[in-house]
Amino acid sequence: MTVHKYGGSSVATPERIIHVAERVKAAWQRAPVAVVVSAMGDTTDDLLGLLRQVAHDPPAREVDLLLAAGEQISAALLAAALEDRGVPARALLGWQAGFATDGVHRKARIREVDPARVQAVLAEGAVPVVAGFQGLHAGEVTTLGRGGSDTTAVALAAALGCQRCEIYSDVDGVYTADPRVVPDARRLRALSYEEMMEMAHMGAQVLQIRAVELAEARRLTIVARSTFADGPGTEIREVDPTESEMTVRGVAHDRNIAKVTIRGVPDRPGFAHRLFAALAGHGVNVDTIVQSAPRDGRSDIVFTVARDDLPRTIEVARAAAEEVGAESAAAEEDVAMVSAVGAGMVTRPGVAATMFGALAQAGVNIEAITTSEIKISCLIREADVEAAVRAVHAAFGLGHGKA
Amino acid sequence: MTVHKYGGSSVATPERIIHVAERVKAAWQRAPVAVVVSAMGDTTDDLLGLLRQVAHDPPAREVDLLLAAGEQISAALLAAALEDRGVPARALLGWQAGFATDGVHRKARIREVDPARVQAVLAEGAVPVVAGFQGLHAGEVTTLGRGGSDTTAVALAAALGCQRCEIYSDVDGVYTADPRVVPDARRLRALSYEEMMEMAHMGAQVLQIRAVELAEARRLTIVARSTFADGPGTEIREVDPTESEMTVRGVAHDRNIAKVTIRGVPDRPGFAHRLFAALAGHGVNVDTIVQSAPRDGRSDIVFTVARDDLPRTIEVARAAAEEVGAESAAAEEDVAMVSAVGAGMVTRPGVAATMFGALAQAGVNIEAITTSEIKISCLIREADVEAAVRAVHAAFGLGHGKA
Repeated sequence: MTVHKYGGSSVATPERIIHVAERVKAAWQRAPVAVVVSAMGDTTDDLLGLLRQVAHDPPAREVDLLLAAGEQISAALLAAALEDRGVPARALLGWQAGFATDGVHRKARIREVDPARVQAVLAEGAVPVVAGFQGLHAGEVTTLGRGGSDTTAVALAAALGCQRCEIYSDVDGVYTADPRVVPDARRLRALSYEEMMEMAHMGAQVLQIRAVELAEARRLTIVARSTFADGPGTEIREVDPTESEMTVRGVAHDRNIAKVTIRGVPDRPGFAHRLFAALAGHGVNVDTIVQSAPRDGRSDIVFTVARDDLPRTIEVARAAAEEVGAESAAAEEDVAMVSAVGAGMVTRPGVAATMFGALAQAGVNIEAITTSEIKISCLIREADVEAAVRAVHAAFGLGHGKA
Repeated sequence: MTVHKYGGSSVATPERIIHVAERVKAAWQRAPVAVVVSAMGDTTDDLLGLLRQVAHDPPAREVDLLLAAGEQISAALLAAALEDRGVPARALLGWQAGFATDGVHRKARIREVDPARVQAVLAEGAVPVVAGFQGLHAGEVTTLGRGGSDTTAVALAAALGCQRCEIYSDVDGVYTADPRVVPDARRLRALSYEEMMEMAHMGAQVLQIRAVELAEARRLTIVARSTFADGPGTEIREVDPTESEMTVRGVAHDRNIAKVTIRGVPDRPGFAHRLFAALAGHGVNVDTIVQSAPRDGRSDIVFTVARDDLPRTIEVARAAAEEVGAESAAAEEDVAMVSAVGAGMVTRPGVAATMFGALAQAGVNIEAITTSEIKISCLIREADVEAAVRAVHAAFGLGHGKA
């Protein structure tokens, strides 16, 4: 038995819901299947649009209750469409499907999945259609954050003891780079969890990063496939070392970042802790952090956050900077991150040099660099993103017909 | 403390939700208030429209799960709008607000209201904003049928021990007749529960009939008021006999009916029981039933149902007719009902004569007549409705400046 997850674009219209129902029916005729759905197309944005018209700073609790309606609608419609095609089906809301989360509204984490009710539906020979993205904490509806339905699907697959979780969207897998930017990008047959996390983190918007973390913890294979085409998709799983011989597996980029620079921080212990603890307290996830070596007893700190988080971030950063007597705190939005990702990278010399060389040749200025065991990321101007991705993709020979 | 209920047209747009929030805020500044909301404007119809595109005969369970999203959205938006205006508020879904129903999906009845959570919100000084129309049965989301939010409001008011329940809509009360049909119709200051039930039943679409029944059982006053104007509205309550001296209080009409005629039913016991039990088993509510005196061992039965129910009804009626050897079963949709309603009617002679005379003078043919203690209803052609209502309204002197 498997779990299928269908994303928002896969259920964006009644016609597409019918298409998904046909797909699920075909799968159900072969083996039991449980389904997780996202909200239809732009429903979530539409609901947030309504909300913005009635409230400037809506409480997170009410936002969750509002947004949860989106998956409720798509789950009920898909279950009805399945029933109409002779497939017994039951839509289940997050709390009905046993999803208990923590109490952090809008970014809740799944604490426990009690699959009893989903199993009861499966035992009847019916298809459970679970509303993704939502759970319950102390009688309150919570949501898991953007893309949370992926995590719902993986958590459900794990709770049901499945080996695989198939995540359907409008793309047919994970590519060596965004095919809209790099025309000769190739679909990858398989990626390791770590590689996928770096790719997802850096903007390859195929899978939510927490879903990949969870799949790794439970040793579950995720298959990223297209709803609208047949094809093997990309498997995210333990990758055999022989498969990851290629140093660099892909090039990711992320435009949804903003950069904050705090200059002239007195070189005393504790400022970084105070700043980043305050940001965490405001629910801001900080991505990259670069701190320069101190000069004249002062250093600069550069970090990036998601653009949505910038207003809160700059407020907190300015207050913290003032408190410790830093010189200034400034924000920039027209930045982006380009990353080369690959599990074999750390053991191969020259990868960083190849990347920097490619960027230099393309005339792209690097504003900050960070590295991990499996990726090198460069902060650049947003205007340079496409040139940068193409140059790095070519420099590592990732295109069709190569490697 | 009071309960306010706002209907779908009152929360149809973000601007109207803000308007309602301002109204609730003003009430809350005077005394504690709990709010019940319907779905925004056409949301319910829009959701049903989507559903029709994916399923021909959707299961009632999935329909309920789908429709419940409508009130979830409006409740969350109104709570957010209140918070934004400095009024602490919590949206509560049916199950969160303690609404336990029976298991009849799409037409569930409230079995019990446990107001603990609503009371806890009130105890914090906050406004509970309860999603109307929905409840829970054995872990399943149920809905109460069209207009069910009125019933939610009255049941909540009763559970909280309120004396009054204010039902806000786009009309400012109950009129002696539909003002769109009768220009000089007057707003009634007060009506008894029974009068309101007859008026509601007969198409004065101000209040759901079950809400009025419940208010009567709990001796609660309902006030029907306009969201968009100030004014006392119409009170539905125990009416002092001196107030109901006027024989006829109002003229109601209902176009949403269809007539079924079964001719030549053999005059043996049991047919009526079999027919109407079968219809009840299919969830069809039968309104008026008229059975003619038998002639030559056979009689005719005429009854009316809501137009939506006609397809199922005629199927059941034909099967039953065939079974007992009746001559024919036929359906007609172009009929309507016009009724004179008033508590004092039964004790006054000549009311029926006045009504029939008015219809005759207006050239309206009467196809069937039924009476109760407080109303006389005539089945007529739909084309005659407006003339009939005006004639009866005038005949009883209900217009402005009179009585």
